[in-house]
Amino acid sequence: TINTQRLWNSLMEMGEIGATDAGGCCRLALTELDRQGRDLFVRWCTDAGCEIRIDRIGNIYARRPGTDPDALPISTGSHLDTQPTGGKFDGIYGCLAGLEVIRSLNDHGINTRRPVEVVIWTNEEGSRFAPAMVASGVYSGKFSLDYALNQTDAQGIRLGDALKAIGYDGALEVGAEKFAKFFELHIEQGPVLERESEDLGVVTGVLGMRWYDVNVKGVSAHAGPTPMSYRRDALGATAKMISALIDMAAAREAEDGRCTIGELCIPKGSRNVIPGDLNFTLDLRNASLDGLQAMEQDARGLLDRIATQAGVEVTLECIWDSPPTVFDADCVAAVERAVASSGCSYRRMTSGAGHDAVNISTVAPTSMIFVPSVGGISHNESEYSTPDQIGRGARILYEVMKSEAQS
Amino acid sequence: TINTQRLWNSLMEMGEIGATDAGGCCRLALTELDRQGRDLFVRWCTDAGCEIRIDRIGNIYARRPGTDPDALPISTGSHLDTQPTGGKFDGIYGCLAGLEVIRSLNDHGINTRRPVEVVIWTNEEGSRFAPAMVASGVYSGKFSLDYALNQTDAQGIRLGDALKAIGYDGALEVGAEKFAKFFELHIEQGPVLERESEDLGVVTGVLGMRWYDVNVKGVSAHAGPTPMSYRRDALGATAKMISALIDMAAAREAEDGRCTIGELCIPKGSRNVIPGDLNFTLDLRNASLDGLQAMEQDARGLLDRIATQAGVEVTLECIWDSPPTVFDADCVAAVERAVASSGCSYRRMTSGAGHDAVNISTVAPTSMIFVPSVGGISHNESEYSTPDQIGRGARILYEVMKSEAQS
Ligand SMILES: NC(=O)NCCC(=O)O
Ligand SMILES: NC(=O)NCCC(=O)O
Repeated sequence: TINTQRLWNSLMEMGEIGATDAGGCCRLALTELDRQGRDLFVRWCTDAGCEIRIDRIGNIYARRPGTDPDALPISTGSHLDTQPTGGKFDGIYGCLAGLEVIRSLNDHGINTRRPVEVVIWTNEEGSRFAPAMVASGVYSGKFSLDYALNQTDAQGIRLGDALKAIGYDGALEVGAEKFAKFFELHIEQGPVLERESEDLGVVTGVLGMRWYDVNVKGVSAHAGPTPMSYRRDALGATAKMISALIDMAAAREAEDGRCTIGELCIPKGSRNVIPGDLNFTLDLRNASLDGLQAMEQDARGLLDRIATQAGVEVTLECIWDSPPTVFDADCVAAVERAVASSGCSYRRMTSGAGHDAVNISTVAPTSMIFVPSVGGISHNESEYSTPDQIGRGARILYEVMKSEAQS
Repeated sequence: TINTQRLWNSLMEMGEIGATDAGGCCRLALTELDRQGRDLFVRWCTDAGCEIRIDRIGNIYARRPGTDPDALPISTGSHLDTQPTGGKFDGIYGCLAGLEVIRSLNDHGINTRRPVEVVIWTNEEGSRFAPAMVASGVYSGKFSLDYALNQTDAQGIRLGDALKAIGYDGALEVGAEKFAKFFELHIEQGPVLERESEDLGVVTGVLGMRWYDVNVKGVSAHAGPTPMSYRRDALGATAKMISALIDMAAAREAEDGRCTIGELCIPKGSRNVIPGDLNFTLDLRNASLDGLQAMEQDARGLLDRIATQAGVEVTLECIWDSPPTVFDADCVAAVERAVASSGCSYRRMTSGAGHDAVNISTVAPTSMIFVPSVGGISHNESEYSTPDQIGRGARILYEVMKSEAQS
């Protein structure tokens, strides 16, 4: 049905743009490298006969026309941006597998009633511009266009200015392009499928997640003459907070409780100065809204308790809130049918990572397909899935989209 | 004897160079601001009739000639560089009090047999270029000149290049200028004198201190799909290490055990990535060499134990080692006599902070005088000592230096 080798070659060629020495890829959103990746994608889609449109937040819609001019498209897609220590598969796979579906429909001379479309969502990772999935968030009405354009990176550059600088500030109204259904194919980015020796994951929903900025203020003082009992050490308190936060999430493994502190910065740190002011990020996840709410309450309680004990002050600010997602039952069933008839082994599962599909699911029937990640590793330069795994997932996407586009 | 108001005014004028909004001073070693501070000091000393010489590591020697052309000088001095969150007193006080001694000798028309000299030591703080006290270290033979000139800051700029850029790369051989005796006046930078309501500290020695660079390597992975029990979280492990290191030092309060983690950096941190690689600094101090050695062994043991439990790797590299110092008994006695006859209250004490006097004490008879720090606060923009406290210390320095220079 599809050409696995061609898909693999495209993945590797795209991975050259921002390739790192350790075999990964660093192609942050809206950088010059992102522009190169987008240009390559647009060229490939144009060569495959697609019409290209770009909206005001830089989302790219590549459409293979259908026979019915009034029918909404069956759409797929993901993102081309990566983490700073990213791999070649996260996001990119979903984009290029969508392209491979279109190339394969061309190969087989298949005309569909509905258009078949691949979408590239801007700034999914959230590592250059928080929050994650921001452009699919604008598409679905979760965020206003102004909110997204005014987000700034660590250098203070506005998302809107970075978008303009790479020439992907399109004219299309965000959200104007509607989908009949949306399917996102992605690597699992976790260890479950591999551990259970399943070929594929039929994704029924996504964990709820919240992002926070935490600030801890103690009193900076000299490392030498300040006895231990006199200190109001912002980092000493933070160390206890981090341990307690991690323990709190570990005790909620049954509800898929997760807690990650990914960034920590002592802005004016010096070797012989007791830290007086520091910031860290907090990422909490849970399968249920009640669970996520309880984790936030636990987090607030333990931060306050430790801060009081240590004589420091703590503030916790929620900067992003993505509630648990349940995907459309028909879309899940369509994927499950295609997987079952392919003979591949599979399980139904919840995604621990947020995806653009989470946002799209609030405005169009949506579901996802996962392929295994070797070693469960992602957001890491050694992220990998085998050509067989890559091919299997794309074949399911092809079957699902073909049949949905014909109906 | 001395003019407290003039000394205070000079301190405030010097504090304008690099003044921060919060009332402190940020004048990092060998920056343009450091050059301005040095220029001002040199102008003041020249106006007071001093001969100026500058050595190859940028130390400044300002000498008021004596009547005996063969006599070695009685020297004092400290540093003009500050911490990133520094105050107006740490180091600067010792420099300008030395200048005030010379101005006062001029006022009273006193000629001394020995020269009276003030020395500015380059890069004492160690926050731009590690290690601390590096230029007095070259003076005393602890470090080679090449070692010091090749130290780099966080931007990779060589100390030697920064020195040249501000025009303070002098011609004098480092160490060529010998001292009969060396006295350093400094703020305490800790809470002891204030807590015990003592006017002055007669400093008999300095804690031993060692600086380390620590690296922790785990496995970076995605914050969402990676269950807590699967993680090899470099920051989670580090949080436990920091807590254990602090507890270890706190249990050694009786031996002046101190432990500070002043810098921590996750180089490619991202909100939704479990940290796989991070660095932190470690500063250990103890009154005795055995105690310092035991703390290092404890630190190594607990880092290894926690790393093994957490499935991460840790390395600890010692980058600076300053053994405990015992000052010259005659110099300590000279200070104690002057303090006792001044009628001020005082205590004998050990310094928790390293000072250039530590290095000088290995090549010349040396001791120190402390004045209280309000709230025990230093390496902090709100560092403060009152004009009375500032005046009292300078008066003692004047009496000691005058009597030593006449003998
Ligand atoms: N797939 C992915 O990395 N999404 C970013 C949002 C998240 O952290 O889950
Ligand atoms: N006085 C001072 O801050 N010296 C720097 C060396 C140290 O950290 O003790």
